[in-house]
Amino acid sequence: MSVKTASELAVLEALAAVLPSDRIIVDDDVMRSYSHDEAQWAPFVTPLAVVRPRTEAEVQQTVKLCVECRVPIVPRGGGTGLSGGANATPGCIVLVLDRLDEIKEINVAERLAVVGPGVINNDLREACHKDGLWYPPDPSSAAWSNIGGNVATNAGGICCVKYGVTKDYVLALRMVTGTGELVELGRRTSKGVAGYDLVGLVVGSEGTLGIITEVTVRLLPTPAPSRTIAGYFDSLVAAGRAVSAVAAAGLTPSALELIDRQCLVAVDDWKKMGVSAEANTVLLSRTDTPGSIGDVEAAAIQACFEQAGASWAAVSTDPEEAESLFEARRLAYPAMERLGHVMTEDVCVPKMALPDMLSRIEAIANRHETVIANVAHAGDGNLHPMLLVQHGDDEGRLRAEAAFADIMAEALELGGTITGEHGVGLLKKAGLTHELSGHVMDLHRAVKRALDPLGILNPGKIVGP
Amino acid sequence: MSVKTASELAVLEALAAVLPSDRIIVDDDVMRSYSHDEAQWAPFVTPLAVVRPRTEAEVQQTVKLCVECRVPIVPRGGGTGLSGGANATPGCIVLVLDRLDEIKEINVAERLAVVGPGVINNDLREACHKDGLWYPPDPSSAAWSNIGGNVATNAGGICCVKYGVTKDYVLALRMVTGTGELVELGRRTSKGVAGYDLVGLVVGSEGTLGIITEVTVRLLPTPAPSRTIAGYFDSLVAAGRAVSAVAAAGLTPSALELIDRQCLVAVDDWKKMGVSAEANTVLLSRTDTPGSIGDVEAAAIQACFEQAGASWAAVSTDPEEAESLFEARRLAYPAMERLGHVMTEDVCVPKMALPDMLSRIEAIANRHETVIANVAHAGDGNLHPMLLVQHGDDEGRLRAEAAFADIMAEALELGGTITGEHGVGLLKKAGLTHELSGHVMDLHRAVKRALDPLGILNPGKIVGP
Repeated sequence: MSVKTASELAVLEALAAVLPSDRIIVDDDVMRSYSHDEAQWAPFVTPLAVVRPRTEAEVQQTVKLCVECRVPIVPRGGGTGLSGGANATPGCIVLVLDRLDEIKEINVAERLAVVGPGVINNDLREACHKDGLWYPPDPSSAAWSNIGGNVATNAGGICCVKYGVTKDYVLALRMVTGTGELVELGRRTSKGVAGYDLVGLVVGSEGTLGIITEVTVRLLPTPAPSRTIAGYFDSLVAAGRAVSAVAAAGLTPSALELIDRQCLVAVDDWKKMGVSAEANTVLLSRTDTPGSIGDVEAAAIQACFEQAGASWAAVSTDPEEAESLFEARRLAYPAMERLGHVMTEDVCVPKMALPDMLSRIEAIANRHETVIANVAHAGDGNLHPMLLVQHGDDEGRLRAEAAFADIMAEALELGGTITGEHGVGLLKKAGLTHELSGHVMDLHRAVKRALDPLGILNPGKIVGP
Repeated sequence: MSVKTASELAVLEALAAVLPSDRIIVDDDVMRSYSHDEAQWAPFVTPLAVVRPRTEAEVQQTVKLCVECRVPIVPRGGGTGLSGGANATPGCIVLVLDRLDEIKEINVAERLAVVGPGVINNDLREACHKDGLWYPPDPSSAAWSNIGGNVATNAGGICCVKYGVTKDYVLALRMVTGTGELVELGRRTSKGVAGYDLVGLVVGSEGTLGIITEVTVRLLPTPAPSRTIAGYFDSLVAAGRAVSAVAAAGLTPSALELIDRQCLVAVDDWKKMGVSAEANTVLLSRTDTPGSIGDVEAAAIQACFEQAGASWAAVSTDPEEAESLFEARRLAYPAMERLGHVMTEDVCVPKMALPDMLSRIEAIANRHETVIANVAHAGDGNLHPMLLVQHGDDEGRLRAEAAFADIMAEALELGGTITGEHGVGLLKKAGLTHELSGHVMDLHRAVKRALDPLGILNPGKIVGP
């Protein structure tokens, strides 16, 4: 165990006095596994302690003790983030909320669910499904990520193009504030304007404004079965044009995903799916509009693909075939990770700027001699370029970091944002100051001080030193 | 003209030095028409001056001067609010934004519009319609209310039950802060998590956190033509049961409105539409789901009405007939106003609590010997009881105010909110402290100080003395 100062030892003693011992982890090896999320190259340290409370009261006790001792708190759920937002900072307590995993209520008539922050996204989705209800936000991490983390990062996913992001589904929160008070924000009614929208402010605040202990989400009826439309293209930019054509045609697919040649080859090398022999870039779309209108929409999406120059495009009537194409999309990231370190970008540009952004990414890859593979929530203009660096290649890493910065800068040039859904965390703090004006950064700092006057909630993330 | 202090005269002189003279109104009679919104019995005074700028730069100059002189600013648009949020307070400048009425951009491919805050809601809707696009939020005031005011109050309307409220459509804002800085918040991309959601925080903040000078809104494709389903009921509570049945059946109408006997009689007495002879309470619903699925949904809504005991229910195939029923809904408020002062309530309860809330309102009316007529966005659980008081009946007014407070208290008992869409303003400041805990009120005050450290933006509204 690392050497502790007297005041650090006092904090650990105080923790042990208020929490059952199985809530507190101080073993260095175990702590290391809780000390960072999945962001490549975001800094982290071993925390002072890891606390895994089982109840809201234990969360509040921990925060109150941290308030008293001025100990920073880094909250986390599944640790699947990609911005370093959950990375441990010096002297902090990592507060893991994964044991607050109760699905407390699924209310069919009011179309809402009440859950602990530690409930896994897919578990909520499955629990709702039984009642004919649906929780739409579907980040790629849905099998592991927690609803609390989804709320803290305002997680997106594949179906956002039609159904919006996490913030569109959060009705109410219970949270512990930066002064240790337990508060209820929002309400269960479908409308309400009593006071400021503090729920919306906390969603996406990456643990810097409060520790979420309960989430009430809005649900939708389960959508009709989807049709899948696939298109193969000879170039990245041709696929980008097809995406713009879908937007320009006024269509609203329920998914519109892009997978480029690098990803297809990586998936094929691993899983032998054989798509890369036929396509340079693949677009996968879905429509869940029911009935004959859904047929018309699927045909219209296929027509957009063909008019943009698809070498092949079709509406799949075979659910297994459709699912295997989406499986290739899901496997892109782990397939690339087999080849080295993967630094994942997350810029989002206006939909019509997608072809331009894709060709700029190709130029950036060439300029910085960096392999950049692309998957994208293309229908949203939300790109996930994956920058590949061989293990131990320090110069390659520097080139990749320069490319990473250039991608953000060029997305801003096109009227885009540095982060569509992954958040700022540690990786994009510099980028944030390029996107927002000095005055807007000042507003951020003022809001941070308002809700966390002692600066103990995930300090140094998004804003601050 | 009322007597001014030396410092007030100095402010007027300074205003005249920075703004063209036609922007400044100091005539008492004209000022009085700008000194309040449409809330009944919310206090107001004659302001120091009314300023009607023509440009964003003039807005900023006015705010900067008010910052320098510590003069409170009460921003307003069309003045159609119902909470006193735009009422002039002592020594204030009323800043009217109705001349910033340019529709700057309607972008079909990106599905967004950029408008000045003074654009009238219906004008934006009409301008979009030409391009096959739709701005959903449709408050009853749509023919007069300004988008800036809609944003400031997070306005709702009839179609919210399916399409959400104003906050679901605001992508970006330009605004002048409480320190006179011009800032851009949000972005044009369909996703984005770079920093806190300050756009969402400003939406619904009733002019207390910033002066909006430009609004970028998300648009949807124009929906398919609607089917209208009407139902006549023998009692208010039977109609409430039908609304709960629609929710319980998992249906998503695009409108579900309630009109009670008092309103029907008032409309008939005025316009001789003859509905009140046949119905005690009317429900009006719409579905805009296209094709045969829309037919199925319309029939299912009709079945819910019938099973809840409707004396008559039908799907209208005649657009004129359907429109005339919705006209009766729209005329309810002016029809009641012909009969005396109308104090409009705006509580919102969980959908399944609607029948209970309606019977409680009947009991409250009896208890306080007050005529209470009801219209409701019933599908949202959002009720608009209208409390009628004869002109000059001071005791009746006191009884109505007691009934008003009781309606809020009982909505809270049922898990509801004191305001679904009208806002807090002045009328519901006491109610807000009943809905929110002391700690949550503290968070509100902290946020207010963060964005308006000098306390000059619409002081005394929502929070504060």
